[in-house]
Amino acid sequence: MTKIVTIGGGTGTFGVLSGLKKYPVELSAIVTMSDDGGSSGILRDEFGVLPPGDLRQSLIALSDAPAVMRKLFSHRYDRGDLSGHNFGNIFISTLEQVTGSLDKALDVAGEILKIRGRVIPVTLSKVRLITYLKNGKVLEGEHVLSDYQLVSKFGIKKMLLQPKAIANPHALQAIEEADVIVVGPGNLYASLIPNFLVTGIGKALAKSKARKVYVANLMNKHGHTDDFTVADYVSALESVIGKKGVFETVIYNTKKPAASLVRKYADEGEPVSFDPKTVQTDAQYVGADLLADGIAKTAKTDLLRRTLIRHDPDKLARVIMSLS
Amino acid sequence: MTKIVTIGGGTGTFGVLSGLKKYPVELSAIVTMSDDGGSSGILRDEFGVLPPGDLRQSLIALSDAPAVMRKLFSHRYDRGDLSGHNFGNIFISTLEQVTGSLDKALDVAGEILKIRGRVIPVTLSKVRLITYLKNGKVLEGEHVLSDYQLVSKFGIKKMLLQPKAIANPHALQAIEEADVIVVGPGNLYASLIPNFLVTGIGKALAKSKARKVYVANLMNKHGHTDDFTVADYVSALESVIGKKGVFETVIYNTKKPAASLVRKYADEGEPVSFDPKTVQTDAQYVGADLLADGIAKTAKTDLLRRTLIRHDPDKLARVIMSLS
Repeated sequence: MTKIVTIGGGTGTFGVLSGLKKYPVELSAIVTMSDDGGSSGILRDEFGVLPPGDLRQSLIALSDAPAVMRKLFSHRYDRGDLSGHNFGNIFISTLEQVTGSLDKALDVAGEILKIRGRVIPVTLSKVRLITYLKNGKVLEGEHVLSDYQLVSKFGIKKMLLQPKAIANPHALQAIEEADVIVVGPGNLYASLIPNFLVTGIGKALAKSKARKVYVANLMNKHGHTDDFTVADYVSALESVIGKKGVFETVIYNTKKPAASLVRKYADEGEPVSFDPKTVQTDAQYVGADLLADGIAKTAKTDLLRRTLIRHDPDKLARVIMSLS
Repeated sequence: MTKIVTIGGGTGTFGVLSGLKKYPVELSAIVTMSDDGGSSGILRDEFGVLPPGDLRQSLIALSDAPAVMRKLFSHRYDRGDLSGHNFGNIFISTLEQVTGSLDKALDVAGEILKIRGRVIPVTLSKVRLITYLKNGKVLEGEHVLSDYQLVSKFGIKKMLLQPKAIANPHALQAIEEADVIVVGPGNLYASLIPNFLVTGIGKALAKSKARKVYVANLMNKHGHTDDFTVADYVSALESVIGKKGVFETVIYNTKKPAASLVRKYADEGEPVSFDPKTVQTDAQYVGADLLADGIAKTAKTDLLRRTLIRHDPDKLARVIMSLS
């Protein structure tokens, strides 16, 4: 069975996994572990656990459990002591405390959610993302970076994890044994790059015989990746991975989102465009209609905005599966 | 298979179920729903759910899931936003919100915990326990009653649930079909009587062809049941149930707890004694050594005190199973 490894975190990885799990493939989701905002941040601070949020999303994506279980794990509280927390995060963090190990916690959670595949934290080190801007400013924490709107204005000099993060051996093994590795889609600085700041992950990726695929985002993030072309994302990632040309295939969307949606999204960023002039490697660029039709229905305003323009998991999976 | 129904709540019911589940019997635990203190109280107030605490204890008692799951469901938070909450309570309450029904929530929880038997809320009405004392004072809430130390001084005139509680049809059916019904052990006013304040439960019990058994507590509760004999508990329960002589069998402990333990427990109450002179019905009184050896090991001081002198689940189950 084809072994596919995804590297990322957040809703981007949720989409890829949701699409790919319908195929007879062996899936492993390597997930970023530097989240320190929201519910994950509070749980980290209070219990000293590892951040559960990105793991939760991948677990739900891979789950074959009845809808009620997936709904339960996605449930976000809007009142009282639990306000802002998410049931899945509490579940994973409590299991980590009870078992004394995130690995064991994920085994139990995976069993309850009947996941098809594996969810692998990229590291089990408790780390914080540090971003040095070119103007000398230092942003401590992923949350701080995400909220800071002048990243693209000043430019990033360097990013690192503090303390140094040791790669999860399961992640290294999955990368080594993979037939296909899919990086992205996902927030460049918050969900993708932190994976490659973990010592050994970039090297393992470069060394792996797998086909390495990057899936470009649909939208740039205002204040972070303004005016980035598809190839600019590839260049940024490859400079952190430490090997130019590591991605053999780059998948990007060619279908224009509706003008009304783009207007609604204007504060967040503009659509990512493909510009052949910015391509710096020999990668195969595969353009396709990857856009989800209709509007994702969610109760929360912020989620709604984030998912107004999003990948269609099935369209994306079809393109990935057609590579060979 | 013999159908055994327990009626109660709290740690008393936990013990009976833990012992009985080792026998090839069909178990149904009917559980009180008037708790409004602690974690259950907060969840009720904030989310308008039914109180999960007593259900949680019975679910764990009946669980055949690996130890880690039982540990998870028992986990109590001691820090941060979740402080004072209990994972199992959060789990049940969130499932109730997600599914829109406590019945469905208990189905899912029961499946995950692989429970052997059924846990049945005595009512699905959202009620509050109201206690009228003979001096005119009114105690609103189970929590308020439990904390009030002068109950036995003034005496109880009447207890009721507000609003009127409708019996859960599953509870009525279980009582009707039972071969044996075990009431107690458990806190008389907080865990036992509230079950019979639900309209129809007492009548169903009186009408049932099952053998009706009352298991007496080991210790009186200071300020509530001072100087109660075994038979005084029976009288108090039967007056609420509305039928004198409803219990055919009364099981009580004959082994004296170690004097050192009794001294440590002195603030809480003294051992319950059997005094034939106080017996008012024809019930069969079965005395046996029911005492757990050794000391329950728990981290929490209050729990430790509560469980210093406790029933041995196996000894108790053996006596119940020997009746016929």
